[in-house]
Amino acid sequence: MELLPRDQIAFQRMLDTIRQTFERFGFLPVETPVMELSEVLLTKSGGETERQVYFVQSTGALGKAADGTGGEGLPELALRFDLTVPLARYVAEHEHELAFPFRRYQMQRVYRGERQQRGRFREFYQCDIDVVGKDMLSIRYDAEIPAVIHAVFEALAIGDFTIQLNHRKLLRGFFEGLGIDDVRQPGVLRELDKLDKRGEGAVRETLAGEGFSLAADAIDRLMAFSRVRSNGHDDALAKLDALGPGSAQFETGRDELRDVLQRLRAMGVPESRYAINLSIARGLDYYTGLVYETVLDAHPQIGSICSGGRYDDLASHYTKSKLPGVGISIGLTRLFWQLREAGLIATADSCVDALVVLLDEAGIDHALALSQRLRVAGLNVETQLEPRKLARQLQYADKAGIRFAVIRGENEAARNVVAVKDLRRGEQFEVGENDLASALQARRDNTPL
Amino acid sequence: MELLPRDQIAFQRMLDTIRQTFERFGFLPVETPVMELSEVLLTKSGGETERQVYFVQSTGALGKAADGTGGEGLPELALRFDLTVPLARYVAEHEHELAFPFRRYQMQRVYRGERQQRGRFREFYQCDIDVVGKDMLSIRYDAEIPAVIHAVFEALAIGDFTIQLNHRKLLRGFFEGLGIDDVRQPGVLRELDKLDKRGEGAVRETLAGEGFSLAADAIDRLMAFSRVRSNGHDDALAKLDALGPGSAQFETGRDELRDVLQRLRAMGVPESRYAINLSIARGLDYYTGLVYETVLDAHPQIGSICSGGRYDDLASHYTKSKLPGVGISIGLTRLFWQLREAGLIATADSCVDALVVLLDEAGIDHALALSQRLRVAGLNVETQLEPRKLARQLQYADKAGIRFAVIRGENEAARNVVAVKDLRRGEQFEVGENDLASALQARRDNTPL
Repeated sequence: MELLPRDQIAFQRMLDTIRQTFERFGFLPVETPVMELSEVLLTKSGGETERQVYFVQSTGALGKAADGTGGEGLPELALRFDLTVPLARYVAEHEHELAFPFRRYQMQRVYRGERQQRGRFREFYQCDIDVVGKDMLSIRYDAEIPAVIHAVFEALAIGDFTIQLNHRKLLRGFFEGLGIDDVRQPGVLRELDKLDKRGEGAVRETLAGEGFSLAADAIDRLMAFSRVRSNGHDDALAKLDALGPGSAQFETGRDELRDVLQRLRAMGVPESRYAINLSIARGLDYYTGLVYETVLDAHPQIGSICSGGRYDDLASHYTKSKLPGVGISIGLTRLFWQLREAGLIATADSCVDALVVLLDEAGIDHALALSQRLRVAGLNVETQLEPRKLARQLQYADKAGIRFAVIRGENEAARNVVAVKDLRRGEQFEVGENDLASALQARRDNTPL
Repeated sequence: MELLPRDQIAFQRMLDTIRQTFERFGFLPVETPVMELSEVLLTKSGGETERQVYFVQSTGALGKAADGTGGEGLPELALRFDLTVPLARYVAEHEHELAFPFRRYQMQRVYRGERQQRGRFREFYQCDIDVVGKDMLSIRYDAEIPAVIHAVFEALAIGDFTIQLNHRKLLRGFFEGLGIDDVRQPGVLRELDKLDKRGEGAVRETLAGEGFSLAADAIDRLMAFSRVRSNGHDDALAKLDALGPGSAQFETGRDELRDVLQRLRAMGVPESRYAINLSIARGLDYYTGLVYETVLDAHPQIGSICSGGRYDDLASHYTKSKLPGVGISIGLTRLFWQLREAGLIATADSCVDALVVLLDEAGIDHALALSQRLRVAGLNVETQLEPRKLARQLQYADKAGIRFAVIRGENEAARNVVAVKDLRRGEQFEVGENDLASALQARRDNTPL
């Protein structure tokens, strides 16, 4: 996805909003190199991901391979395919320099060698936060995460949304109750995760088939369980209560969900914004506790726009320390593309506030000086450096999404004022040069963007 | 270069400052994919760069090569090694959707397969601006560029600096006057560019040698010319006047330099910030007019921290349109590293303004709610989610560079106030909960960072 400037401005504003919100909650920035050692990346990736890794070789290394002096095995370096593996490597590498629980955000591009198709990208932004503890991490961190999700999507203002909560231990405890053993549980989780895509009929068939051999009654109870959704805070608690007693694992999951619900209320997250949804499983095997998905209420077909969960051990491949954590990820490139396809993103105004117009050669130095005064006052200003017809300059500003055109003809110059065309409101007004900056700022900041 | 969070915060602030300044001058954001077609990259790169390109292959493509079903020739994709080639490709590709002169900024990482050594990076940020015209571009854009450089380094506040100006046509016109023909001129330019590194003696030797065969008198005049530096605006004009008459090319260069100097004065750039330096050549062959370098007055050994110039045709490989332009580049990763080595970058305060302390289990929901109120007011807040000894929490905040610790013991709770420790000033004060946010903001914003 390569954007024209006005779309890039809209995208950049989303990135900035997400970053600002992450920082509001005390997360610290991390950036890692785009290349990791191939062996680091491949340790963590499943088969599917392995086929999608981009390997990197400098010209020199390629030459060597051609000479037959190397070239066996895989190239040493590859491009990151997510931000979780780099986080694990980073935390393990800097373990003794970091304070735990370590709260980091990372917003960088990741790379996957996907086949090219509409809406799938080989290079896309992920915006991640994680809290990583040492040895243990309180369930309270799991409650803070949905508060961050809430703040992010309120700030992005792309419509009503619901943060859906579930708990892996509640799920697995329930499976236990159905007599599904540990070996089959991950498979059942994955089937549950496919309910949306495959539909209930197909999933039922798989669960009844050879791999799982679940009885019809067990499948019925599983499906009923997976249909549980809450509507409001008290309903969420009631729905959890109504599940009846279960195994120790089941009760741990339920207690932690209750705890998270209580903390969300304490943080003032509106109850319309969160719900339990017992079908949420998340495909990844490494989640062990709370799991989150976020859906736009009016656009469920977009799927989850922000997902994540709790995991037991982030970096077992790189350090002996046990590093439990909880985190989420927003795939912003895909989200932006989907929102634009759905008509939910308007073309952004320019990041340029004003165009200082130039009517004749003699006006250049005054136009330059006036532009600088506006810039010092905090306005983004383009100066027209070569005189053109006024109509053409206004047309340019309008097309570029620049709101104000500052015009100083002979008439205005004689009176030490300028004329301002507010292209958004279709108004024109006059203002003294000394008051120009504050007049433009007041108009800019009073008008919601 | 991989940074710990507090250094990353300092780095991020520099990136933000540069971006904000670029936008002040009406530049528009562009981001391009990290991978370009190899043939696009290699068209533009010289031999030196060619050896440093990183090629990219997905797992699938590697497999093919191993099977003997492919693998001849170079991989199709490679990582960008600068932002100029992607700009040329972008402008050519979107030519009919862009408004010209096209003012873009781009701040992304670029990749070069350098041998690993101290202070050289294989992956580093470049922060570029360019103005690209169609068919022609007024010299006034060349004058705006140093005004941007000035604003950037004023805002970065890393010490006094001088923007050094020269003009390729002035140089080449002067060479003409010495009887150096077109064929030898680029070589002489490159030698001039090496004066700092090789020293005058070595350069003199080369110019007198076989390749150039310059007479001693010509070399003397060349060296005298290259030693011309101005001190102040009027001195710059006087030094230009004193050069005596020259060829048409020489006079064009001199006129354009004068024009740029006049515009800089009109824009209010202080005369201590710019100077002519007739030894500036810039190694790259594609510059054809103004050239810029920027040095920190107290740290000349760092070399140029921001360089660029005017070129005749950006994208002749990709489009038939003639696209003259002018631009500059800041290699921020290297600059940051050098500034840190020189002790010019202090460890940044945290981006977290306040830690809301937790003294006992019963306080959790109040701490969460209080934190949220501060966040809504625009403060970045971390909540201590598990009770610990106060001393440990304060120690953590201090070490993390968090300025304020908000404490609510029984004593404070009974009176509806909180105690605030200002760790930077080493002060403690009490404030009502309702006034907490504004009290913290006032302290934060009144104190220069």
